[in-house]
Amino acid sequence: MVVELISVGTEILLGNIVNTNAAFLAEKCALLGLSMYHQTVVGDNEERLADTIQTAMNRSDVVILSGGLGPTQDDLTKEVAAKVLDMKLVEDKHSKERIQEYFKNSQFKIITDNNWKQALIPEGAIVIDNKNGTAPGLILEKEGKSVILLPGPPNEMIPMFNHDIFPYLNKLQPEIICSTMVKLCGLGESFVETEIADLIEKQTNPTIATYAKTGEVHLRITAKAADEKEAKKLIKPVVKELRSRFGNHIYTTEEQDTLEETIIRLLKEKELTLTTAESCTGGLLAARLTNVPGVSDVFKQGLVTYCNRAKRKLLEVKKNTLKENGAVSEKTAKEMAKNGAFITGADVCVSITGIAGPGGATDEKPVGLVYIACSYNNQVTVREFHFKGERNKVRESSVVNALILLRECIIADTEKSAKKD
Amino acid sequence: MVVELISVGTEILLGNIVNTNAAFLAEKCALLGLSMYHQTVVGDNEERLADTIQTAMNRSDVVILSGGLGPTQDDLTKEVAAKVLDMKLVEDKHSKERIQEYFKNSQFKIITDNNWKQALIPEGAIVIDNKNGTAPGLILEKEGKSVILLPGPPNEMIPMFNHDIFPYLNKLQPEIICSTMVKLCGLGESFVETEIADLIEKQTNPTIATYAKTGEVHLRITAKAADEKEAKKLIKPVVKELRSRFGNHIYTTEEQDTLEETIIRLLKEKELTLTTAESCTGGLLAARLTNVPGVSDVFKQGLVTYCNRAKRKLLEVKKNTLKENGAVSEKTAKEMAKNGAFITGADVCVSITGIAGPGGATDEKPVGLVYIACSYNNQVTVREFHFKGERNKVRESSVVNALILLRECIIADTEKSAKKD
Repeated sequence: MVVELISVGTEILLGNIVNTNAAFLAEKCALLGLSMYHQTVVGDNEERLADTIQTAMNRSDVVILSGGLGPTQDDLTKEVAAKVLDMKLVEDKHSKERIQEYFKNSQFKIITDNNWKQALIPEGAIVIDNKNGTAPGLILEKEGKSVILLPGPPNEMIPMFNHDIFPYLNKLQPEIICSTMVKLCGLGESFVETEIADLIEKQTNPTIATYAKTGEVHLRITAKAADEKEAKKLIKPVVKELRSRFGNHIYTTEEQDTLEETIIRLLKEKELTLTTAESCTGGLLAARLTNVPGVSDVFKQGLVTYCNRAKRKLLEVKKNTLKENGAVSEKTAKEMAKNGAFITGADVCVSITGIAGPGGATDEKPVGLVYIACSYNNQVTVREFHFKGERNKVRESSVVNALILLRECIIADTEKSAKKD
Repeated sequence: MVVELISVGTEILLGNIVNTNAAFLAEKCALLGLSMYHQTVVGDNEERLADTIQTAMNRSDVVILSGGLGPTQDDLTKEVAAKVLDMKLVEDKHSKERIQEYFKNSQFKIITDNNWKQALIPEGAIVIDNKNGTAPGLILEKEGKSVILLPGPPNEMIPMFNHDIFPYLNKLQPEIICSTMVKLCGLGESFVETEIADLIEKQTNPTIATYAKTGEVHLRITAKAADEKEAKKLIKPVVKELRSRFGNHIYTTEEQDTLEETIIRLLKEKELTLTTAESCTGGLLAARLTNVPGVSDVFKQGLVTYCNRAKRKLLEVKKNTLKENGAVSEKTAKEMAKNGAFITGADVCVSITGIAGPGGATDEKPVGLVYIACSYNNQVTVREFHFKGERNKVRESSVVNALILLRECIIADTEKSAKKD
């Protein structure tokens, strides 16, 4: 089955916003096993929009439009789609009530005439409630083809797609699609691909797709089957096989989980507190950790010691260490981590010191040289990295690898104590 | 003149990458005063790509393609474009030499046969050197229309566009386009728009366009004229008028400048050092400041005091203050800023304490309540904010408003001392 995307909005044609909706919808359609050959962006112009919808309907089975469902004169996706499909617009009682309800609970109490425009629907259309706005989604079906209209704002479109459109599209096909995301950290993409080359080679159902992220590799296992239970049965042995090959490098098999979330969870389970001692990342590691809601049980404080004096004063790094080895050295990283834990009374401390560039490099210590240390259980582990790229990239790579080292140290210790028991 | 974009790449159709190239190119084309009615994404498929190029050429004067210029079998943008325009592929000596040169300096020393494919060009095409990769850009001109082929990787495409394609497109038009970005902080978008409603109403040349960012509003003034000097002469009085209306809320008139960069520059000029004391933002403010290269002259250290104990221990916030007012209070924010500066020996300290959510809220202190304080020159200024949105958004708004408060305090002091002199 062939699907096609049409994004409606002059703001995309002017480059005022990046079309993240298209990426989201494309990934979901790929996951559903639908073939996509075209994506189009067109402005809020009646003639061009009608043309674009007609062209898309001629060559695809499903056409998904996003944007142009708002209450203003400019918004004409629904009107144009109805015209192209030769459907009459009628008032939808249910949608009207929902709009009334929405305004009652909103800060804007006055409903203007144009708001009622959003209660008009093409006759016979399937109405999808919008839980985060006033424009309902719509599915228009005609001659075996489906035209799906979604609101433009991602915070309205994404929940609506996940809740209603994904299952609708899944049912259109003879077999349903089900997938599991296996997320790995601490291994390179090409290493992972080589390790599973045999699995990829012989794959038919389920299939495995790899996605490289900074410091991480994600593997999506996708199965087609008559129902969800059957699909999950096909996926299970593949996940098991991946677990036996990659072990602890797999940090989650949950789609929504992030690396920092799993680490915070791990620390909570073990009732450990964590602190950070950062130089070149300047707070980026702490910021990423504190992006996790509920992190306060685990993370109490963090130190950003950007200059040598701060490293000495706040972290009690020895004057001699800095003098003989420099701020960017294994020894400084070790002292930062060890003293950071001791001074703040935390169980674990991760430290980062390095040269993010573009300045500060020497022949011996080039841009990208970063030392990361983790102090836990009276032991300090330190690692040297040579990251590629610009300042931003070096800082981001440092943060991810600090998270990976932190996770490894806690897990290694868990395994050790398990063996002792 | 009408321009149209075609992004070539299966990875966009699969949703593996977000099409940021299209947003970049669209913004630049808008800036050049070109009209854009369509953007299309198509995969690496000969027939569909040829169709898409043909359709675009029928309705537009300029067609810009990005992607599909690589050395592999999949990459066929150049081959297909040449076919559609009925041009023969010939070897370009200059491009061949550049590829040889590139590989000599790269880590991959071996040139495979398919690399030479990148030295083939449609006969008569204008070749644009690629300073960051092996695929040259190409401009094909035929019957008054231009088809421009650019490499897909943004780090190759963007410099090439800015350096060569922007001036080429500018010359195609009878008048050239020139623009200046005026960036404001500390004012809402609707306030700014109301204040300049008269200017926008009567605008013809130059024009003013507004762009809203978190905590900032950017105004782009664009003029058309016979040459750059003439265009700049048109822009100058508008910038002057905006300066007289918005005064110090304008933090830069340089396109590339960010708010944090201008603040760091301001601190350097005044030889002031800065520290941060963060609670709910958990290092995000320090991370944003340290993203600026050369920040170490100004920023020596930062403290992330996430729990009350850390606020007491690291920042010496009084036990009573926390008990009577709570961690999220005007008084706590003030003490954090004042003590932060004193303890670290910095001239300026900015503090943030608030409820980022989703947890931690009470009836009296809802999610989004944030206090930001700035201590400078024996004075502490504090402000209360009620931010909307989710955790991420509250944290981001807090950071921007901390930067704005910091800037205001330093500027206000400068003005005061100027008056005294």
